[in-house]
Amino acid sequence: MNREQLIEQIKIKKSFLCVGLDTDISLIPKFLLDFEDPVLEFNRQIIEATHDLCIAYKPNSAFYESRGIDGWKSLIETSKHIPSTCLGIIDAKRGDIGNTSSMYAKAFFDPKSSGMNFDAITIAPYMGSDSVKPFLAFENKWVILLALTSNEGAKEFQFIETGANRLFEQVILTANSWAGNDRMMYVVGATREEEFKAIRKYAPDHFLLVPGVGAQGGSLADVCRYGLSKSCGLIVNSSRSIIYASSGEDFAQRAREEAKKLQSEMEILLKGVDF
Amino acid sequence: MNREQLIEQIKIKKSFLCVGLDTDISLIPKFLLDFEDPVLEFNRQIIEATHDLCIAYKPNSAFYESRGIDGWKSLIETSKHIPSTCLGIIDAKRGDIGNTSSMYAKAFFDPKSSGMNFDAITIAPYMGSDSVKPFLAFENKWVILLALTSNEGAKEFQFIETGANRLFEQVILTANSWAGNDRMMYVVGATREEEFKAIRKYAPDHFLLVPGVGAQGGSLADVCRYGLSKSCGLIVNSSRSIIYASSGEDFAQRAREEAKKLQSEMEILLKGVDF
Repeated sequence: MNREQLIEQIKIKKSFLCVGLDTDISLIPKFLLDFEDPVLEFNRQIIEATHDLCIAYKPNSAFYESRGIDGWKSLIETSKHIPSTCLGIIDAKRGDIGNTSSMYAKAFFDPKSSGMNFDAITIAPYMGSDSVKPFLAFENKWVILLALTSNEGAKEFQFIETGANRLFEQVILTANSWAGNDRMMYVVGATREEEFKAIRKYAPDHFLLVPGVGAQGGSLADVCRYGLSKSCGLIVNSSRSIIYASSGEDFAQRAREEAKKLQSEMEILLKGVDF
Repeated sequence: MNREQLIEQIKIKKSFLCVGLDTDISLIPKFLLDFEDPVLEFNRQIIEATHDLCIAYKPNSAFYESRGIDGWKSLIETSKHIPSTCLGIIDAKRGDIGNTSSMYAKAFFDPKSSGMNFDAITIAPYMGSDSVKPFLAFENKWVILLALTSNEGAKEFQFIETGANRLFEQVILTANSWAGNDRMMYVVGATREEEFKAIRKYAPDHFLLVPGVGAQGGSLADVCRYGLSKSCGLIVNSSRSIIYASSGEDFAQRAREEAKKLQSEMEILLKGVDF
């Protein structure tokens, strides 16, 4: 899915919601354990119930890897259920020297090699450009680079002063030379005005993937007040508050209701965007 | 394997060699393709031929992930063939928020969960302490944190001046407060004297995992001149020059010969260490 198609989906669905598939087999409704692949069945039903309300799905690779072969199978099959009207993001935080990053790119972008055909992948920036470029070598695929994360430990390195900029600003400034806003997004776990202003200074119309709205307590209105760009420029993720809205047989319906609440709020906030 | 046991293995084997299992199915001897799991058979024979000459094996996760389910199976089965006299390092470059890093830790450290029981994992530092601590919550397991990598792009962020230090030095200084040299190692792709001196200033007796000796052209003598500590403090990796020494039926024997050359050089260099 390219940038035009992504913006088109945002307009059609009046939503910039990403549903995070951080699917923990110990947290899904118990009746699903009778299925051959309970995690896949959970994800399948969540996708079926929400795909007209969101523009992206983001499986978190760790939750699948933790279950060994069974988890990897669930991830591959889940990836096949993400409809073409939604961006498929694999949250994998990879990054290594060139020939190794090429292998990671094959793992998530090349269905002939691995069975998976995601549109985008989250990448850690520490190893620099040659750790990122092998992902950009795949046409029509996106790199979503970690810039400013939402966790407590983010402060330890990302806010370090590096002369004119803090490290997270320097990462964006440097990475802007690797690809344009049609191939690169940034992970931005900010909610404070000052941080969004700093990011929008260097990435005025890039898409930003914002985690942590919902169960983790971020405010959608605050994110939008400071983060919306002229092309929307936001993909806001919510995982637990949607997928674990109920632990009963109504889990998919309840997930839809939670997604609908966020989509409705987004619809109002998008009125400020002059597409 | 704890620090004492690792040092004991270095003394017994007169070696601080790590064999990198960057096993690419397109590069292994063709006759192995008749086996049910050619990559596993290759790794099994490499391990059988070299385990008395090295103190660690390091599968590179990307090479396995790129092959989907088949690759993940090869990785899990390979992990079971690493003998207890060698440190099992999974080169995975992971790191995410706390609950996600806990899942990655289960993936590689908890055999009941995933089938894998590695001793150590490589981790990217960008997200800070809470992305690393879940790995340290597993007793007797090691974190090998990226500090200074050997690739060209390393310069873009790792050498940034951050006040008193460059970023790679600041990473070591900060991470030293998360765990001692009995739980934490650093990835150091340095060969230059000045860089090793900078690293040994903050990590005087930590083990450093040094990639790139052999096919990638680093000099073992240089690494040792500047990097050896009073407890050895080095694990030097070689991948391609060992595992792809021959593409014929003699591949394991030729791998042994290459490993023996490095071990012999290491034996001489270790005479300078007063264990």
